Amino acid sequence: VNPCGIITFTSDFGLEDAYVGIVKGVILGINPRARVVDITHQVSHGSIPDAAFLLQDACRFFPEGTVHLAVIDPGVGTARRSIAIQTEHCFFVGPDNGLFWPIIDRDSSSRIVSLEEERYFRSEVSDTFHGRDIFAPVAAHLSAGLAFHLLGPKISNPTFLACPLPEIRKDRLLGRVIRVDHFGNLITNIDKETLENFLENEEAVIRIGRLRIPGVGRTYEEASPGGVIALVGSAGFLEVAVHLGRADGLDGLKTDESFGREVIVTRSGPAG
Amino acid sequence: VNPCGIITFTSDFGLEDAYVGIVKGVILGINPRARVVDITHQVSHGSIPDAAFLLQDACRFFPEGTVHLAVIDPGVGTARRSIAIQTEHCFFVGPDNGLFWPIIDRDSSSRIVSLEEERYFRSEVSDTFHGRDIFAPVAAHLSAGLAFHLLGPKISNPTFLACPLPEIRKDRLLGRVIRVDHFGNLITNIDKETLENFLENEEAVIRIGRLRIPGVGRTYEEASPGGVIALVGSAGFLEVAVHLGRADGLDGLKTDESFGREVIVTRSGPAG
Amino acid sequence: VNPCGIITFTSDFGLEDAYVGIVKGVILGINPRARVVDITHQVSHGSIPDAAFLLQDACRFFPEGTVHLAVIDPGVGTARRSIAIQTEHCFFVGPDNGLFWPIIDRDSSSRIVSLEEERYFRSEVSDTFHGRDIFAPVAAHLSAGLAFHLLGPKISNPTFLACPLPEIRKDRLLGRVIRVDHFGNLITNIDKETLENFLENEEAVIRIGRLRIPGVGRTYEEASPGGVIALVGSAGFLEVAVHLGRADGLDGLKTDESFGREVIVTRSGPAG
Repeated sequence: VNPCGIITFTSDFGLEDAYVGIVKGVILGINPRARVVDITHQVSHGSIPDAAFLLQDACRFFPEGTVHLAVIDPGVGTARRSIAIQTEHCFFVGPDNGLFWPIIDRDSSSRIVSLEEERYFRSEVSDTFHGRDIFAPVAAHLSAGLAFHLLGPKISNPTFLACPLPEIRKDRLLGRVIRVDHFGNLITNIDKETLENFLENEEAVIRIGRLRIPGVGRTYEEASPGGVIALVGSAGFLEVAVHLGRADGLDGLKTDESFGREVIVTRSGPAG
Repeated sequence: VNPCGIITFTSDFGLEDAYVGIVKGVILGINPRARVVDITHQVSHGSIPDAAFLLQDACRFFPEGTVHLAVIDPGVGTARRSIAIQTEHCFFVGPDNGLFWPIIDRDSSSRIVSLEEERYFRSEVSDTFHGRDIFAPVAAHLSAGLAFHLLGPKISNPTFLACPLPEIRKDRLLGRVIRVDHFGNLITNIDKETLENFLENEEAVIRIGRLRIPGVGRTYEEASPGGVIALVGSAGFLEVAVHLGRADGLDGLKTDESFGREVIVTRSGPAG
Repeated sequence: VNPCGIITFTSDFGLEDAYVGIVKGVILGINPRARVVDITHQVSHGSIPDAAFLLQDACRFFPEGTVHLAVIDPGVGTARRSIAIQTEHCFFVGPDNGLFWPIIDRDSSSRIVSLEEERYFRSEVSDTFHGRDIFAPVAAHLSAGLAFHLLGPKISNPTFLACPLPEIRKDRLLGRVIRVDHFGNLITNIDKETLENFLENEEAVIRIGRLRIPGVGRTYEEASPGGVIALVGSAGFLEVAVHLGRADGLDGLKTDESFGREVIVTRSGPAG
C-alpha cells in the first residue's frame, strides 16, 4: 500500500493546550505536504478501549494509504513498546497498549514493527511526550514514503485488548453499552451481523435497565420527540437512542450508569 | 461560479466522536485536493436556526466557489429532501430543513436541486448518517468540478425557516436575542441598517430585561471592566456585551433566559 | 527567513461560534495555498499570559518561516497597536498587548513593526473583530511572501508582559504554578536549567500546599495509579502530576486554587 499523504490524529490531549498543534508542527517539519485530519482529541484520559473503538470505525472511511496516528499513552516513557502497523489498506502508528488490537484482530495479513530506529525520531526524545518526539515523526516519514520495514524489527505479539463480545445464551443475545456518543446514543457491542443472525427474521425486543423496546427501527424520527428507539447505528452496531433527546438521560440510565450496562435482545415472533 | 477546492463544514456532531473525521475521510477519498475548513461542530443538537445564523454570516468571508457543507439533520433517514444550492458566489449542500433559508432568501438568483443522483453518493447509504453517505460525497464532487445540474432535478420550494425579524411599533424598535456567543455577548436580530434607519442620527437607548443602556458604543473597552455596553458586533447585528465579562451572567439575564429575550430600542434625542 | 506557507492560529474564540472558521476563510481568500494549523482556541477569555505561555512553547516545533497568528485581544478597537514580529526563525502577528513578550524577550534580533499599511487589511475594518479584518489578512500576506518591512514602521517598545520568574532565596528555589493543563498537571515556571543549576546533582524535595514530593521523576508511571510525581514536563518546566489522575484534584489543590500556587524546591542530599 502506498502512502496518500493523509495522516489522521486521535488522542486524549484535549483542545485547550498546545499539544495537538505541536504534534502537527513536527509532522509538517518532516513532510510539508502531509494533510492532517483530526479524528478526536477528546478521548477520556488514558481510555484505550474508547480510542480503539473510534479508530477501528473511522479508518474504514479514509483513502488507501492513510497513516493513522493515535496517542493514548498512559505508559509514556516506560518499557511499553512503540509500534507501527501496515494493513492491506493503511498504516497505524502509536504505543503498543491495545489501542490497535481491533484492527490487528480483523486483518490477519497486517505486519507490525517495533519502532526502534531512532533516526526517524526527533533528535531529542523526552520521557513524557512520545506523541511529539516519536510517533509524529514516524507518521510523517511513513506519509512521505519511507519503506515500512525500515522502522524497526517485526514483532508478532502485539498487546491484546480485552473487548467484551456479545454472547448468545439460550434464547437471549447479551451485549453491553460500549460507548455513549455526543448525542447521548448508547452504542452497544452487538454488531449488525450478529444481531441479524440471532433474529433470523423474527422481531426483536431490546431490554436495557427498566426499558423494554419493541423492534429494531431504521431512523431516529420513527420515535416521537422524546421517545426511545433501538436501531443499527452508523458504525454498524445496535444502539439505543432518544429522538431529539439523550438516551443517557433516561430514568435509570444516567450517564455514569450507561457505560458497560447490559443489553438483552430476545425474539418476539415473526417480523411483520 | 467555479469551485475553488475549499469545503466548509458545519454540524452538531460535537468533537468527542469520530463523526467529523469520518466525513473528512469520505471527502478526501473523492477529492484528494479538497481543503476542509471547520466552521463549528458545536451547534446545539438539532438546532437549525443556530446553524442557519452561523452559516449566513460565515459564508460571506470565504472565497468564491467555496462549497459549504452543513449537517444539522434531526430528520435523517425520513422523507425530508437532500439539497444543493448554487448562488452567485458559492455552493451549499445539506438537508432541506430550513438550514439554508437565510441564504436562499437573500440571493434570489440561487438555484436549488434535490439530490437524487445516487451515483454521487457512497455506494451504501445508511439511514442514520447522510452526512457521511450523501452530503460529504456530493460536496466533494462539487468541489472537484462536477456540474451542478447533474446532481438532480431543480426545485423551487425549499423549506422555509421562520426567522424572527425586528419590528418597528410606534417609536420603538423591537428585536430579540438570537444568539449568545462564546464570550457571553447577546446578539440580537436587529441589523445595522434597520438600526440606523430607525435612529435617524438620534441617540439610542437599549432596554433588555431590567437593563437600560444609553447609546450604541463602538468597542468593548468603552465600558469599564464589568460594565455593560451595546454595539454593532462583527456579524453586523446589535449586541449587548460586558467588557471582560459575560452579558448572559447579568442579573436577570441568566444564560437560559437570554435566548429569545426581547430587546427594545428607543430614540433619546439628537446624537452628540 | 522565508515563509513556508504554514500559519498557526491561537485565540480565545472558543469553538461554538463561526469566528475561527471566518478567520480561516479570510486567510484562504488572500493566500489559497496557506495551511492553517490550530494551536488552541480555548485560551481563557482575554488571558494574555496563558496564550503567551502556549505560543512560546508551540512555536519551537514549527518549520522555519511559519507565521504565528494569535488573537487574544480584549482591547480590540482601542488605541492598542497591532504588530508583526520577525525572528530568526519565524513570524508573529497580533495585538501589541504582551502576548509576544516571551518571544521578543528571548530573541534579541527580532524586528517588530506596527501594522499601519491598510492596503494589507480587509477593505472594511470593524471595531470589534481585528482578528478577521487586520491580523488574518496580514498573516496571509506574510505567508504568501510579502516583504516584512512593507507592513508598517519599525517599533522598539513592544508591550511588556510581567512573567513571574523563579527565585532562589537562601537554600530554597521558589516558583509558581503558571498553568494547569488538560490532564490536570500543574506546570510551574521553574525551567529545567534553573532546576538543575540549583540542585547541583543533589536530590530534590518539592513542596506544594501540604504535599511533599521527594525527588524529580522521569515518567508519569513511576508513581502508582493515583500517586503524585514531580517531573520536568514536555515544555521543559517542572510539573506536579498524578499518574492516571489529576493533580489539581488533590486535597488542598482544587482547580481554582492551583493556579499561581507557590512551589518550593529544596535539596535533600546527594542523588542516589
